[in-house]
Amino acid sequence: MVTVVLFLGLAVALINPSVAGVADNRIDRFSSQNDGSCELPDALLAEIRGYQPIVNKIIDKIVNGEFAGRTWDGLAELVDTFGARVAGGEQLEKAIDYAVQKMQADGLENVHTENATVPHWVRGYESAELVKPLRKSLPLLGLGSSIGTPRGGIIAEVLAVESFKEFEAIPAEQVRGKIVVFSPAWESYGRTVVYRSQGASVASRKGAVAALVRSVTPFSIGSPHTGQQHYQDDVKKIPVACITVEDAQMLLRKYRRGERMEIHLEMEDRPMEPVVSRNTIGELVGTTFTNTSVVVVSGHLDSWDVGVGAMDDGGGALISWKALAYLKAMGLRPRRTIRAILWTGEEEGLYGGAAYKEAHKAQEAKEFNFFFESDIGTFEPRGLDFVGNADAECIFREIVKLMSPLNATEFETPTDGGPDISHWTTRGFPGASLLNKNEKYFWFHHSAGDTMAVEDPKNLDKCVALWAAAAYVVADLSVSMPKDIHP
Amino acid sequence: MVTVVLFLGLAVALINPSVAGVADNRIDRFSSQNDGSCELPDALLAEIRGYQPIVNKIIDKIVNGEFAGRTWDGLAELVDTFGARVAGGEQLEKAIDYAVQKMQADGLENVHTENATVPHWVRGYESAELVKPLRKSLPLLGLGSSIGTPRGGIIAEVLAVESFKEFEAIPAEQVRGKIVVFSPAWESYGRTVVYRSQGASVASRKGAVAALVRSVTPFSIGSPHTGQQHYQDDVKKIPVACITVEDAQMLLRKYRRGERMEIHLEMEDRPMEPVVSRNTIGELVGTTFTNTSVVVVSGHLDSWDVGVGAMDDGGGALISWKALAYLKAMGLRPRRTIRAILWTGEEEGLYGGAAYKEAHKAQEAKEFNFFFESDIGTFEPRGLDFVGNADAECIFREIVKLMSPLNATEFETPTDGGPDISHWTTRGFPGASLLNKNEKYFWFHHSAGDTMAVEDPKNLDKCVALWAAAAYVVADLSVSMPKDIHP
Repeated sequence: MVTVVLFLGLAVALINPSVAGVADNRIDRFSSQNDGSCELPDALLAEIRGYQPIVNKIIDKIVNGEFAGRTWDGLAELVDTFGARVAGGEQLEKAIDYAVQKMQADGLENVHTENATVPHWVRGYESAELVKPLRKSLPLLGLGSSIGTPRGGIIAEVLAVESFKEFEAIPAEQVRGKIVVFSPAWESYGRTVVYRSQGASVASRKGAVAALVRSVTPFSIGSPHTGQQHYQDDVKKIPVACITVEDAQMLLRKYRRGERMEIHLEMEDRPMEPVVSRNTIGELVGTTFTNTSVVVVSGHLDSWDVGVGAMDDGGGALISWKALAYLKAMGLRPRRTIRAILWTGEEEGLYGGAAYKEAHKAQEAKEFNFFFESDIGTFEPRGLDFVGNADAECIFREIVKLMSPLNATEFETPTDGGPDISHWTTRGFPGASLLNKNEKYFWFHHSAGDTMAVEDPKNLDKCVALWAAAAYVVADLSVSMPKDIHP
Repeated sequence: MVTVVLFLGLAVALINPSVAGVADNRIDRFSSQNDGSCELPDALLAEIRGYQPIVNKIIDKIVNGEFAGRTWDGLAELVDTFGARVAGGEQLEKAIDYAVQKMQADGLENVHTENATVPHWVRGYESAELVKPLRKSLPLLGLGSSIGTPRGGIIAEVLAVESFKEFEAIPAEQVRGKIVVFSPAWESYGRTVVYRSQGASVASRKGAVAALVRSVTPFSIGSPHTGQQHYQDDVKKIPVACITVEDAQMLLRKYRRGERMEIHLEMEDRPMEPVVSRNTIGELVGTTFTNTSVVVVSGHLDSWDVGVGAMDDGGGALISWKALAYLKAMGLRPRRTIRAILWTGEEEGLYGGAAYKEAHKAQEAKEFNFFFESDIGTFEPRGLDFVGNADAECIFREIVKLMSPLNATEFETPTDGGPDISHWTTRGFPGASLLNKNEKYFWFHHSAGDTMAVEDPKNLDKCVALWAAAAYVVADLSVSMPKDIHP
């Protein structure tokens, strides 16, 4: 149960959201219930509801007006020009330079970059072929941080299992010297991705010479998917890659029929020294609170090195940047600053967010009001996924209701789609992630299928409209979003 | 309007389908309307409806009984053991030997092969890379019959168009020396495939050095699709390949933005001398008409050299073969012979069917009663797609109604899914193709996605049940299927 603390002065101010100069941090508590039911003060409720006309205007201008289609065009130009933007690579840095220049041209303020050290891992020539009992090419993608094979590759017998549990029961002497194939059934990304992230370590512990993992997707048209993996500290590093769903299933069937199989695996992949990349930042400076209580809207600009990262996460980056551009062009400037951050080095482990957190740590409690992140697709928006305390939740539930013109009023909690902002949201800062109709997200994720073909112009318009409208309201409210920061 | 010719003796015989020894060819005309309405004689209607119990039994045994799941297992063993089975290749011939042996083990009769000369085209190393203004690998698949590039490949400027119409308007001097990219929007397979089959010839006529065509699919996850193409007689042969939908769209966008692009294309593909392959044949010999009035059930055993041809057309081949195996195991033997034919060399242009037609031409009018073919997927069956004269249609409409236990009573006409049997059906022989829920067929078609992951055990059971039941009824009917053969 959260206590009610409402100052009369504020309650009055709440009635008219256009009142400027309200002391932003005078309160951070008011009525709400832990069971999700809320008892917002009438004045605050009225204030939030009072934003409906401006929300409607923002949505209409972006979806039906002069901005319609521009976000898709902008994203297409970005990914067509620079292609994949992997951390440590030249294309990412060129894309950052381009984003800085284009953000300035779009009228964003205080456009700059902030350094972040990111891993640098390079995919070289990669090839896997089943050579016994028949020859069959096995399309593969080495996993981020994987070492390569010796030159010329390795040829080893195959041991295929469906699960870690099945693998546990196999004695090490049967594993030693073999290539272990993990062919887990898809359950969910969270449950299945452990085979990608841990497969090499699990296999290496029993003496395997390499691990090949079913791509982490529920559906495939013969495409392998990449992603990050982590060697546990005390295991010998072995090469690890994802193969297609189809080939993983085939190898498991053949193994279970008792067939003796050999694979020739060659990977020139190699980890390099970390390099300095940059988070890219632009703002719409607030009318009242210019250096405190910032509302962050964000997505990551880096991608994997396959496909072009239009979905993961070009879309998230673009809607964050374009939300500010369109608000500015519409002459809308909220009380608080809205800051677009295009993270770098997300794919390898949230490095951009981590660097930003460290650099802003001293003043973070004052500096940040709310964090938005879009990194689970920009398909048709459904609403917003929230994380934060019960008070903030009560306010945010009302804000989401304003998105009715987009038919995007779904509210979920807790968020699961904000990896970079988790640097803050796991410590009590409130935040939200874009809920969207992303049922097919993992079909394309980290694969050659992550391209503009996934993105729909109208849906992108709707996403940026929701993003702009929600960020505007949060940034303009007379109250800051409540938070309970913990270390 | 078709005239009514019904002999009393036959009408009596029709009442009891178990009466043997009916002179099979005594009639081939009876009442029907060209508008699709039918006036089948009561006796014939009663005869067909009398098959419902046996149809129910066949379906139940295959879908719910001892045969359930076996067709999927058999198909998996075939494609896992031999992989892709391209005409001219060793794996196809090994798969044919295997099919002969397994058909015999399944109790099929007169199992044998018949020779068919097929093209032999070999895919070599293939690579395409956008080298200006940025480097990006362009996954590709050379098209059947394409020539290769010179060793080391070619580097040429890109000219991208959406349609032949757009290309027509471009003067030859602007095309000369360029790589032409055709990026048509998907309309339907029939309308879009012309870019694959004719793109090289159209581009070459204006002096292009190569053609790259958007893969012929409505949906992609970054996979290229192959397929046959044809050089027109009077054009210079140039290398031609399909690239992914995503890359074709990207290249078109960049071209339309005025970007100058260069592609480095290398293809070692080469046409070889034709070789002798084999159609694979097995029978369930009829009780009454053993050498005439054969009912053919068929699919093709060959595939393209990518994926493993589980869908195109392992499924069609397997349901044809297994339909006979299960009928035999159930002790069901119709009056006419049912002959399973696993065609060879379909993909390159229906070569197996053509050879079979020629070899059987002298006696074809007597030899063949009806042709079934499954080559548009073995997803959940919907019914049957018919081609033939109005009399045959009337009978067949009633037969399809018997498939109600499978909820597969849809009847369509004319067929569009029987390429190999078109050698006969275009000349007046009646035939049918398997209608199934194949909305996603072209997602996987001729790509690495054509694998067992597309096939569902229960749906395959339903397909083979429909196939066995329909073939049994057609083969056992007291009347032959009417036909109007023309040259």
